[in-house]
Amino acid sequence: PTDWTELDTRAVDTARVLAADAVQKVGNGHPGTAMSLAPLAYTLFQRAMRHDPNDTHWLGRDRFVLSCGHSSLTLYIQLYLGGFGLELADLEALRTWGSKTPGHPEYRHTTGVEITTGPLGQGLASAVGMAMASRRERGLFDPEPAWGDSPFDHYIYVIASDGDIEEGVTSEASSLAGTQQLGNLIVCYDDNKISIEHDTAIALNEDVPERYRAYGWHVQVVEGGENVRGIEAAIEEAKSVTDKPSFIALRTIIGYPAPHKMNTGGVHGSALGADEVAATKEVLGFDPTQFFQVAADVLTHTRELAERGRRAHEDWNVEFAAWAQREPERKQLLDRLSVRGKPAGWTDALPSWQPGDKAVATRSASGAVLTALGPILPELWGGSADLAGSNNTTIKGADSFGPPSISTSDWNATWYGRTMHFGIREHAMAAILSGIVLHGPTRPYGGTFLQFADYMRPSVRLAALMNIDPTYVWTHDSIGLGEDGPTHQPVEHFAALRAIPNLSLVRPADANETAAAWRAVLDRPAESGPVGLALTRQNVPILAGTSAEGVAKGGYVLAEATGGEPAVLIIATGSEVQLAVGARDQLEQAGTPTRVISMPCVEWFDAQDQAYRDEVLPPAVVARVSVEAGIAMGWQRFVGDRGVTVSLEHFGASADYQTLYREFGLTVEAVVAAAQRSLTAAKG
Amino acid sequence: PTDWTELDTRAVDTARVLAADAVQKVGNGHPGTAMSLAPLAYTLFQRAMRHDPNDTHWLGRDRFVLSCGHSSLTLYIQLYLGGFGLELADLEALRTWGSKTPGHPEYRHTTGVEITTGPLGQGLASAVGMAMASRRERGLFDPEPAWGDSPFDHYIYVIASDGDIEEGVTSEASSLAGTQQLGNLIVCYDDNKISIEHDTAIALNEDVPERYRAYGWHVQVVEGGENVRGIEAAIEEAKSVTDKPSFIALRTIIGYPAPHKMNTGGVHGSALGADEVAATKEVLGFDPTQFFQVAADVLTHTRELAERGRRAHEDWNVEFAAWAQREPERKQLLDRLSVRGKPAGWTDALPSWQPGDKAVATRSASGAVLTALGPILPELWGGSADLAGSNNTTIKGADSFGPPSISTSDWNATWYGRTMHFGIREHAMAAILSGIVLHGPTRPYGGTFLQFADYMRPSVRLAALMNIDPTYVWTHDSIGLGEDGPTHQPVEHFAALRAIPNLSLVRPADANETAAAWRAVLDRPAESGPVGLALTRQNVPILAGTSAEGVAKGGYVLAEATGGEPAVLIIATGSEVQLAVGARDQLEQAGTPTRVISMPCVEWFDAQDQAYRDEVLPPAVVARVSVEAGIAMGWQRFVGDRGVTVSLEHFGASADYQTLYREFGLTVEAVVAAAQRSLTAAKG
Repeated sequence: PTDWTELDTRAVDTARVLAADAVQKVGNGHPGTAMSLAPLAYTLFQRAMRHDPNDTHWLGRDRFVLSCGHSSLTLYIQLYLGGFGLELADLEALRTWGSKTPGHPEYRHTTGVEITTGPLGQGLASAVGMAMASRRERGLFDPEPAWGDSPFDHYIYVIASDGDIEEGVTSEASSLAGTQQLGNLIVCYDDNKISIEHDTAIALNEDVPERYRAYGWHVQVVEGGENVRGIEAAIEEAKSVTDKPSFIALRTIIGYPAPHKMNTGGVHGSALGADEVAATKEVLGFDPTQFFQVAADVLTHTRELAERGRRAHEDWNVEFAAWAQREPERKQLLDRLSVRGKPAGWTDALPSWQPGDKAVATRSASGAVLTALGPILPELWGGSADLAGSNNTTIKGADSFGPPSISTSDWNATWYGRTMHFGIREHAMAAILSGIVLHGPTRPYGGTFLQFADYMRPSVRLAALMNIDPTYVWTHDSIGLGEDGPTHQPVEHFAALRAIPNLSLVRPADANETAAAWRAVLDRPAESGPVGLALTRQNVPILAGTSAEGVAKGGYVLAEATGGEPAVLIIATGSEVQLAVGARDQLEQAGTPTRVISMPCVEWFDAQDQAYRDEVLPPAVVARVSVEAGIAMGWQRFVGDRGVTVSLEHFGASADYQTLYREFGLTVEAVVAAAQRSLTAAKG
Repeated sequence: PTDWTELDTRAVDTARVLAADAVQKVGNGHPGTAMSLAPLAYTLFQRAMRHDPNDTHWLGRDRFVLSCGHSSLTLYIQLYLGGFGLELADLEALRTWGSKTPGHPEYRHTTGVEITTGPLGQGLASAVGMAMASRRERGLFDPEPAWGDSPFDHYIYVIASDGDIEEGVTSEASSLAGTQQLGNLIVCYDDNKISIEHDTAIALNEDVPERYRAYGWHVQVVEGGENVRGIEAAIEEAKSVTDKPSFIALRTIIGYPAPHKMNTGGVHGSALGADEVAATKEVLGFDPTQFFQVAADVLTHTRELAERGRRAHEDWNVEFAAWAQREPERKQLLDRLSVRGKPAGWTDALPSWQPGDKAVATRSASGAVLTALGPILPELWGGSADLAGSNNTTIKGADSFGPPSISTSDWNATWYGRTMHFGIREHAMAAILSGIVLHGPTRPYGGTFLQFADYMRPSVRLAALMNIDPTYVWTHDSIGLGEDGPTHQPVEHFAALRAIPNLSLVRPADANETAAAWRAVLDRPAESGPVGLALTRQNVPILAGTSAEGVAKGGYVLAEATGGEPAVLIIATGSEVQLAVGARDQLEQAGTPTRVISMPCVEWFDAQDQAYRDEVLPPAVVARVSVEAGIAMGWQRFVGDRGVTVSLEHFGASADYQTLYREFGLTVEAVVAAAQRSLTAAKG
């Protein structure tokens, strides 16, 4: 570019040297890509992106996603050069206890990091969610202006690697990005043809640009990682294409210009070694005996970004103020969402059911809740991985989110629509939901069968690690789904999901608990982690004694023992609470005071104070039974040595659900028998 | 085709009517695709495939994979028409308790079903594994002849749906299939443009054929599901292309010819309704008042497949006998593998280590085992999802599996090579390993970091459901991996994997237990489910007292309490066994008789009889501690009410592993303190 100076070149070379030094100092890490991508990263951070080092939460900023999180130095060094808060000492502390520069970028841990990345594919897939969120937010706050004329318009930039390209989750998300015509998404693919097993020809021989063209993307190929002119031109063209996501394949030499190790797998994930670091410095005209060298004029130059960012931000503030004046109601909405407020009396809209009413599947109750809340909470939006009707995830009357051209006889798509259609892409759905949450203040949810939480798991885990709060609507939550059989029947999923730290799994017992669950989910603070709702396919009766407060506490006394002094406790979740209630009836009739505890969310219950937990589960009562149509793992700590778990320790089968419950011993009689066994053990 | 008769047409129409009737009878299921794919399925089963209804285990048979498992009737009806063992009564019992016709096809449950399918994408991805296995087996048993001249040559046929195409796992597997040039793989894509949310335009607008061309496949497009001439010609051409996998996109009308419901989402996953079933029968010239109508001449015609299959099988037997004579040693190998035998004395080759030797990472020990067994067990082959050097999955000196043209400076690829390179495609790797096991008698393994078991999970679960035995080499199994930080550190994974029924998770304590674990894995019977090895990145000391027999039993006394009467039991796994041993030293010095139990595999321990389990964990000793660098979930049932778990209930961090163990309280001192707490509780 005409305004590229020798200072820019030295800044890029400084980035390379810092990458080599930082990894060499700690003795492990990934120097290669940080070296070869320095020109691209520098161009993005210093020249292409609109951002403000002094306000990394600026609403109007471009977002940056380092999908190849192992190359965290690519990001850290730009955050240092650009003055986002990292200093040389932070780079020197790379990958050490308590540093701001962990092995992979961590959201909330390091200022300027928009998303935690590392598990490959996740970043690119979540970036698709950010691009979608950007459009949906535009629709909520400023739908009228043409693209580029709103303060809510900006770009999502991604750097992706071979690994990201190979992972299936990006294939899913990239196909959807094409369908969604996400013109605000720009993916730079670092085509270095080297991964950990070295030359990628051993495993990757597809024509990646052609694949992205098949997805409907705008595709450019730039030869040469050092080709800053080509890089900048490609980015400019990508920005100008507003009806397709952009893919820029950049052919780089990993580890450039390390004289002996560039273009080898050895430079991917290991320190260069002292000699090669020195040799690299010599190639670049740096003093090989010095470490972490940054010339003062270089840093002064790169930190001028602060001033450019400040000016851009100020210009934007003017636009934003004009918007606020032009759209006072929408400004109020933005203000409300920014503090996660709710309209007064919003919970009055929640549907409720009476004991004795017709039995209702909790998935249906969830659908009724969404439709009831839809008009009140525009921040709520979501969809399904091609199971909308089964997951009950559609807010009735809402448009679909997408270009009008994808409308079908069943769905009316509008650019700012509300119902998302993920296709049969559960993994991308989960990553996209995270991207939406990371991008702005809306509240997204996504549905599939609980069985396919397994497909979503890497993204669910990452949401939990980031402590962000997408909501997963997981229906068909047990053998209760019936005829589809064991491939579709969750058995181990409750336990496996409860195992993930920060994730809350909520399994309501009936329609009222379902409404209470949604209420609790929407009321939680921002940094409380993702929530999965486990909902039934089959109808379940409306129970007496349910409590919204109790649901929010994770567990509560649904039915007290006669006399208030229980001899035995029956703890149950979801569709099995009715079995606990039925067993209580029989036990009480036989003279055994029996308390039923509904425990829709173990995690929320664990978060209560000891006094409340002891009130619900009195330590003195050691005769205890748990009932859940899944493996017992995790329940032993509630029922204790003398307790009995009523569970399912094997895969399901294909038949109607009544037969399955009976054949697999999930019955009132089995719960009664378990209680009697536990009572005997308690006496022993 | 010239030899297509009116009987063939009536047979196809019979298949459609049976599909409609079967779903209508049970009231739920998926009739649409079974109706529209009847011509394709009939052509494959009756005219294209080489198979023998009387011997579905025939080594030389073509394999058929119904990737869209929800359309199980597509398969069941052909198994009925072709005489593979299903009869009309079985179709009438669709999706009912105990029937041979469950909602989704189940391996081992129904004769002629080659693989359990249903979770979308899995079938196609596993078919890639079958095609790879076919070539590897060819290399083991009959490497010399040209393609088509060996009794080991055959095809893998797949029917895939929109859902399969959208799932990322197929993208991964399809890219790899292109690299591998799997000419024996023929995928028929049912391009009906309808999924559960109806018209797929709402979520799928990519150019699928172009995408498959970009992967390097041979791609054909056939218009019209009724176009049997086009279908047959395309299959013929696909068979003739031997250097690329084949993709046949077949444009069908779902539910054809149901007059009111075809080409709608309503016909995908619901019964047609009595009126529409009747109307369909009228369109096809069937009596609308009759159900499950099969004309005698139609069945006679389709069951002639038995005779054609018998003849093909006999012809093949001649070839096979000639091969056996030509290749007596290879015949011996096949015989050995067919019964899962081992060469005499094979365990002598296992490496061993002495206490006091240099500490060894269990991943390194695993690599040493593989290299030692490589020359003795040619059935053993595997690779990594681009982490070969880190997972230690390469048998030293072995060629890589692939076309010679993909060789790199690091890897020498040969068609029949042994080291697989999955690329950064963990999910496809897992599905492929299952396909390899399903195809034949080799013993495949695949490696990645334990963290990325999450990516593999849907395929791992399906392997567990099928009770087949791929081996997963999961290294970097805890915070012990250090600097890469929480995105890469498993915390919940032990529990989440132990939750899957039939899966064995084995976490050896040191190098010798690792060798013992491999020995036990290779010695298990065929129907014992998949095994995951959880191996350390960091070095761990060689322990005194390890036992190969003990490992095979899942848990054993590694160090007995002085005097043989333990006051406290410390149960530990993997890299934490050394902490248990260290704690025992301190406790014994303080006069507390302490037993250390190494528990590498909870599942195997649970399978022992009560006497053995009580011997290892005497019920009378209630002071118990578990130690594992992961969440405690699952350990409470071993330690009981008065036990204490030493665990990690939150995500990890980026730092060297020694710091992490110390900061997170996984230390000898913590184990000692836990033991003391438990001893106090036991007294109370």
